[in-house]
Amino acid sequence: MRAAVLNSGEILVRDDVPEPEPGPGQVVVQIKACGICGSDLHFAKHGADMLALGKQMEGMPQLGTRGPELDLSQDVYLGHEFSGELVETGPGVDLPYGPGTLVTSFPILLRPDGIDAIVYSNTVKGGYGERVLLSAPLLLPVPNGLPAHLAAMTEPMAVGLHAVVKSHIAAGEKAVVLGCGPVGLAVIGALKARGIEQIVAADFSPARRELAVGLGATDVVDPREETAWSRAGATGPVVAFEAIGVPGILDDMMRLAPAGSRIVVVGVCMNPDTVNPYFGISKELNVQFVLGYTPEEFAESLGNLAEGVIDAAPLVTARVGLDRVAWAFDALGNPEEHCKIIVEP
Amino acid sequence: MRAAVLNSGEILVRDDVPEPEPGPGQVVVQIKACGICGSDLHFAKHGADMLALGKQMEGMPQLGTRGPELDLSQDVYLGHEFSGELVETGPGVDLPYGPGTLVTSFPILLRPDGIDAIVYSNTVKGGYGERVLLSAPLLLPVPNGLPAHLAAMTEPMAVGLHAVVKSHIAAGEKAVVLGCGPVGLAVIGALKARGIEQIVAADFSPARRELAVGLGATDVVDPREETAWSRAGATGPVVAFEAIGVPGILDDMMRLAPAGSRIVVVGVCMNPDTVNPYFGISKELNVQFVLGYTPEEFAESLGNLAEGVIDAAPLVTARVGLDRVAWAFDALGNPEEHCKIIVEP
Repeated sequence: MRAAVLNSGEILVRDDVPEPEPGPGQVVVQIKACGICGSDLHFAKHGADMLALGKQMEGMPQLGTRGPELDLSQDVYLGHEFSGELVETGPGVDLPYGPGTLVTSFPILLRPDGIDAIVYSNTVKGGYGERVLLSAPLLLPVPNGLPAHLAAMTEPMAVGLHAVVKSHIAAGEKAVVLGCGPVGLAVIGALKARGIEQIVAADFSPARRELAVGLGATDVVDPREETAWSRAGATGPVVAFEAIGVPGILDDMMRLAPAGSRIVVVGVCMNPDTVNPYFGISKELNVQFVLGYTPEEFAESLGNLAEGVIDAAPLVTARVGLDRVAWAFDALGNPEEHCKIIVEP
Repeated sequence: MRAAVLNSGEILVRDDVPEPEPGPGQVVVQIKACGICGSDLHFAKHGADMLALGKQMEGMPQLGTRGPELDLSQDVYLGHEFSGELVETGPGVDLPYGPGTLVTSFPILLRPDGIDAIVYSNTVKGGYGERVLLSAPLLLPVPNGLPAHLAAMTEPMAVGLHAVVKSHIAAGEKAVVLGCGPVGLAVIGALKARGIEQIVAADFSPARRELAVGLGATDVVDPREETAWSRAGATGPVVAFEAIGVPGILDDMMRLAPAGSRIVVVGVCMNPDTVNPYFGISKELNVQFVLGYTPEEFAESLGNLAEGVIDAAPLVTARVGLDRVAWAFDALGNPEEHCKIIVEP
């Protein structure tokens, strides 16, 4: 089958990728749509650094037996924001719907001896290819005729929802969202869905500020002209989301946030970053780092899209075939031109 | 009256400090004991940097009209961990006890137009002098015959209690305390008072590890030989307290903490500090910066000392007069020799 792969930092298209073969409890799904995530762009550029940093770290849960280490000089399969049609079921799979059903899934693959993440792998195929293996117990049929390219937005929207859940934001609290890329926009959509009444968003890009308003931001600011903090007019704590992920932002937030504020770090800053703990101490700030989402949040995210609570259509700025994945990785560098590009293999 | 003051980085003793005169709602207290806080040592060395950093920061609550800026080339009054005997009351003060009563107080001074912190000031006297102004509504009489030098431990013990309260640690959770100076020891004492069953503490100093055991640590480690994390044997999240306050510690904690852990920063690191947000993100860590304590926690801390729940006596390694404050500031640099030095003016 065909798939776009990452090899030594380059995106290439292969025609001879082995077909996935479903084991017990697994299914084969024909990918209809797969979004390109900012983390994929980062991994393509800085994969070796990410792997090295991961190795320094302890305390991560072990999800099962691991295969050989990821080899960046071999083909790496990517693509974790997908939807597709059920094609084939493995032994012991009994689903209440049949082939052709549009589904999405929490992007992990259950195996008898552990769990594989569907994110970066030399062996586990992702959504930038024609077909993938998925786990029957995790499949979610897409309801209400939601089109495949919007069902693929379930995953990025779940990232925003999870950040909002972990923030413990309550009715009456003010939200500040710094950065209106796909992650910031997902946060804004989830804040609105949860009934938050004041959502101040900041981004340099007019196009992204417009998207922010569409998703529910009540105020948008250009940080060159005004800070989100001043627009929020907060005299008490706010709940602030860092959705930019570049060094310096966290310290700036700690410097400017009102005393007692909660900062949720959902942007993925892969570089070492310098902060002044004194700012955090003086104002008793709380910094919650977040990652991913729960299966329940993933399902809620799909529901939000299918029921029209969140309209993700304006975020999709291009839909391309496998041959244009390399182009899309480049194009996503320009925030005025593109927000979310969907690959349709 | 006599007082030890900070002037241009030097501790000097003055004999001609103006006597405090109580206004409405205020009282004069004869200081019997005042502990030397690590923040005083830091302020003596790096006061100018601290003031500069404070100026960069926004979002701090304004506590009232402010006088002229702190002038480090003039005499600065210090000393916020005090107890003393009631001497004189100002207009409108009606207390149920009389002169000679041993009291302590949350270290702020209420004025008709605002609030002054009793911490570093060119005008508001602190505990390194013979007498101070305090606020009648904040006075706490010292119960159970607790001696003055232990009543002066109310404040540093309240710092630890506040950190434990803000950690939201619950029964069954494991605690890790890095650093067994006065702050770390106060945290350990508060954890034990709150019924936490596993408290693993780390310090390079054998003397401080012994104090940690006395206050309630169930395990102590020398970080040169073993990490607190490995001793805790945690397979799930822990609640970890940073009570060291030097650059690099926070990143190390983020690198080693089990996924889902909560880190409470109670050590005061005044320097810029570099962290890898990737560690925090990958493990969804929470970092709560804390400062000070509430009036209720201050009162609870006094109760813990007076009722014998926490025995702070072993922490007090010297008691000195005003003439030896300068010596004490130097002596506190050696953790094997000294932990808490009490000034008795």
